[in-house]
Amino acid sequence: MTERLYESIAEHVVRQILGGALRTGARVASVRTLSAQFKVSTNTVLHAFATLEARGFVEARPKSGYYVLPIATPGLEVPRPPSSRPPSVPRSLGDRLPGFFHSMRDPTIIPFGAACPSPELLPGERLARVVGQVARMAGSRALGYDALPGHAFLRREIARRLSRAGCSVTAEEIITTVGAVEALHLALRATTKRRDAVLVESPCYFGVLQLLSELELRAVEIPADAESGMQLNRVEKALRGRTIRACVVVPNFANPLGSLMPLQAKRDLVDLCRKRDVAIVESDVYSELPFEGERPVPLKALDRWGIVLHCSSFSKTMAPGFRVGWICPGTHFERVEQTKFTHTVATPTITQAAVAEFLANGGYDRHLRTLRRALRDQVRQAREAIARHFPVGTRVSDPQGGFLLWVQLPTKTVDAVELQRRALRNGISIVPGPLFSAQGGFSDCFRISCGHPWSPAFDRAIVTLGRLCRT
Amino acid sequence: MTERLYESIAEHVVRQILGGALRTGARVASVRTLSAQFKVSTNTVLHAFATLEARGFVEARPKSGYYVLPIATPGLEVPRPPSSRPPSVPRSLGDRLPGFFHSMRDPTIIPFGAACPSPELLPGERLARVVGQVARMAGSRALGYDALPGHAFLRREIARRLSRAGCSVTAEEIITTVGAVEALHLALRATTKRRDAVLVESPCYFGVLQLLSELELRAVEIPADAESGMQLNRVEKALRGRTIRACVVVPNFANPLGSLMPLQAKRDLVDLCRKRDVAIVESDVYSELPFEGERPVPLKALDRWGIVLHCSSFSKTMAPGFRVGWICPGTHFERVEQTKFTHTVATPTITQAAVAEFLANGGYDRHLRTLRRALRDQVRQAREAIARHFPVGTRVSDPQGGFLLWVQLPTKTVDAVELQRRALRNGISIVPGPLFSAQGGFSDCFRISCGHPWSPAFDRAIVTLGRLCRT
Repeated sequence: MTERLYESIAEHVVRQILGGALRTGARVASVRTLSAQFKVSTNTVLHAFATLEARGFVEARPKSGYYVLPIATPGLEVPRPPSSRPPSVPRSLGDRLPGFFHSMRDPTIIPFGAACPSPELLPGERLARVVGQVARMAGSRALGYDALPGHAFLRREIARRLSRAGCSVTAEEIITTVGAVEALHLALRATTKRRDAVLVESPCYFGVLQLLSELELRAVEIPADAESGMQLNRVEKALRGRTIRACVVVPNFANPLGSLMPLQAKRDLVDLCRKRDVAIVESDVYSELPFEGERPVPLKALDRWGIVLHCSSFSKTMAPGFRVGWICPGTHFERVEQTKFTHTVATPTITQAAVAEFLANGGYDRHLRTLRRALRDQVRQAREAIARHFPVGTRVSDPQGGFLLWVQLPTKTVDAVELQRRALRNGISIVPGPLFSAQGGFSDCFRISCGHPWSPAFDRAIVTLGRLCRT
Repeated sequence: MTERLYESIAEHVVRQILGGALRTGARVASVRTLSAQFKVSTNTVLHAFATLEARGFVEARPKSGYYVLPIATPGLEVPRPPSSRPPSVPRSLGDRLPGFFHSMRDPTIIPFGAACPSPELLPGERLARVVGQVARMAGSRALGYDALPGHAFLRREIARRLSRAGCSVTAEEIITTVGAVEALHLALRATTKRRDAVLVESPCYFGVLQLLSELELRAVEIPADAESGMQLNRVEKALRGRTIRACVVVPNFANPLGSLMPLQAKRDLVDLCRKRDVAIVESDVYSELPFEGERPVPLKALDRWGIVLHCSSFSKTMAPGFRVGWICPGTHFERVEQTKFTHTVATPTITQAAVAEFLANGGYDRHLRTLRRALRDQVRQAREAIARHFPVGTRVSDPQGGFLLWVQLPTKTVDAVELQRRALRNGISIVPGPLFSAQGGFSDCFRISCGHPWSPAFDRAIVTLGRLCRT
C-alpha cells in the first residue's frame, strides 16, 4: 500500500519534469507541500524523493530541498566513431552475453533487443492466405525438395526488384537461402579461408562477428560513422597494410548504426576492392526501409566485375519466420551453390512459393510504404523519449531508414554491459555495445530496436533505462 | 522406319531372354527365321543382333548364330566390405561429380540418383491442407521468428516419438533444424575442431564427407558391411590407434548400404565411444522405414551419458521440401543452440507448425505403414530387375528398410564413374561409388534410390544400365 503511494508521488514529479513544468535546476515542491497535497506522511514523501534521486531525476541540496537534474536535450548529437583497432578473432556470443537467447524467447520482455519488426506491422493475415492458397495449388509438389539454385518464380521476382534498384542481374544468378544469415555464411565460405583478414564496419552486427569467429577469420574493424558508414580513408589504409580477402558491409541503414553510405562512397568502395582483389559481401536487408524517397542503391548495382556477393532477405520487411533470403554471388556462383547443398541441401519450398506470390500479386510495394511510415514514426518517438529521459550528453544515431538506434552514453554513466543486466532485471532487452566489436569496445553504447509500435509501456521502459544508466 | 523395325526385333529377343524362354547359352532364332517372321530384310535382323550384342545380351559364334549370354542370377549376393584406409580430407563434391546438381534439377531424368521418396508416396494433399489450416490459425504469428530452440509443440511431438523408440528425452533437450543436414553440421561443429579425426562408415553418405571437408576434418573410414553396418572390431582398432573426436554413424538403414546395426553392436559402439570420450553423431533419418516390425532402436536410446548427438528429420518420410529436422545434442545443447543462431537464426515457423499438427492429428503412423509397404515393394522390384538385367556376379545389398540399394559390379565391367556418365547421357541418374569415400574407392559400386513407384520406364532404365555396364 505504502509502496504504491510513494510511487504515485514519484510519478507525479517525473511527469512534471518530462512535461516541462519543472525545468532543470528548478526546486521541486517541498516535502510538507506534497505531504498535504497527497494526504500522506512526510516519510512517504521522503521515500518518493529517495526514489527520484536514485533514478537521477533530482538531487537533494542540504537544508534547501530537491532540485531537478539536467536531462538530455532534444537536439541529440549522433555517436562518435571509435578509433581503428588491430584485427582480432571475435569471441563467441554466448560467452559474452549469457541470457541472450532466453531474453529473445520471453514475450513479457520489452523487445528493444531483437532487430525485427513487430508482427503487427507485417502482412500476416494476407500472407497466411497466400500460404494456404499456394499449398492448395501446389499440393504434393509443395512437399518436394526445391532443387538448387532455388524456386524459379521467386528468383525471377527477386531479379525484377534488383533490376529496379539498378542491378543488371538475372534469375539465373540468384540462389535462395535460409534468410540473409545463411547467405552471409555462404559468401564468406566462398571467398575466404581460415585466418584470412576480413574488413567489417565498427560497430558491426554481432551475428557477422560470430560468423567470422566460427570460420576462424580475423575481423579488421573499420570505424564507421553514424551518418555515412564505413570511413573510406580507413578502408584504403587497411587495404594498403595487409592482405584482405573480403569486406563485409551494410551500405544501406547498417546494423547497428543505421548509417547510409553516400553514392560516391559506394562507388569508391567497389573501386578500391576491385583494385585490391577484395570480395565485397554486401548485406542489404534494411535497404527497402528508407523513411523518405526511393530505396538506396546497393553495391551490387555498381559492380561490373562480379566481385559483390549481394545478400538479403525478406525478414525485415515481410516475414522473419519464413526464413527466405537470397544471395547473388557474382563470380562465386558455383562454390556458393555447392556449399549451400552441403549445409541445408535446399531452401524450404512452400515459404519461397508464398513470398514469390506475394511479391508478384500481393501488394508488397503498398505494404512497404505503410511499413516505412510506421518505422519512421517509431524511430522518431524512441529518439524523443531518449532525449527526454536520458542524461545530458547522451548521443543517439539519426538514421534515415531501418528501425535501429545506436545510443552512446555520456561519461560517468554506467557501463553498457551492466546496463543490459539491469535492464533485463527490469524486463527490458537491449544489446550492449561490446557485442558489436570483436575486441569488446563500445562499452558506452547500446542498440535499441524500434520495430514495435510505440506504446506507453515503451515510454516507461525508456524512463527506466534512463534511470538505470544514471545509477 | 528401319530403326524402329530393328528395335522391335531386338526387344522381342530381350523379352524372350528376360522372360526365361531363352536361357543362358541357348541359340537365338536364326536371321532367316526372324526375317520371315517379322517380314523384314536380313540386314534389319542383322542390325538388331548387332544391337543385342552391343548391349551384352548375346554373342555371335562364327558360322553358328547368336547365343544368349549369362545375366545375373536372381539369388544376388550382397556387396563385400572394402578394406580399411588411412584418414584423408575429403575432396569437394563439385570437383568430383560435375553435372550432379544439374541432374537433380532435371525432371526428365530417371531419378535413381536422389535419395528422396517420390511425392506420390507422401501425404501431399493432407499436408497442404494442414499448412493452410495452420496459417489461418496462426495468422501473423506464423510470420514471426520461432525463437530457439524451436517450435515448442513440434519439440513435444518429437520427444513423444523418441520416447516410444526407447529414448528418455524431453522437449527441452531438442533443437529443431533446417533438415537433418543442418543438424549434422551443428553436431560436428559442437564436437570437433579443425584437423580432428572423425570415424565414418565406409561407404559413407557423400553429404557427410562433404561436411567433413568443409570443416577440414579427417575422415577415418571404418569398413561397414551391407547387413550390419560399421565393423566394431575396426572401430576398436581405430580408437586405439589415434585420438578420435567424433563418430558419425547411421545405425538404422544406412546410406548407401542400407545396413542395420544389431542391437548388441549398437550397445558396444556406445560403450566403446563413451570409454574413449568420443562423441557419437547419429543420423537416424531412415529409421522410421523398416520393411517389417517396429522401427529399430536409435543409439540415443542406449545413451545414459549424453554423448550421442541424435540428428534426424522428416525429409524421408513426410516432406523433403519442408526442411524440418532436429537435433537432440545431449551435453552439447548450448554450443549447438548458439551455432544454430549464427548459421540460420531460426528454423522456419510455419513448416514446423504443420509438421507438429500432422504428427499430433494427421495420421502419421498410418501414413508410415503405407509408405513402408510401398518402399519395400519398390526395393524388391529394383533388386529383381537388377538380377535379371545385370551381368553375372553383380552383388546388390538386401536392406531391411529405407529405399536405397548398393550395387557392386563384377570385375571386367565398366568403372562406376564412367557408368554414371553414360547413364546420364541416357537420361538416368545414379550416384557412383567413389563419391561415398574420401579416397575415391568403390569404383566398382554405385547407389540406386528406389524412392519412386516402380514403372516400365524404370525397368527399361535398369535394362539400359545393365547394358551400359557391359560395354
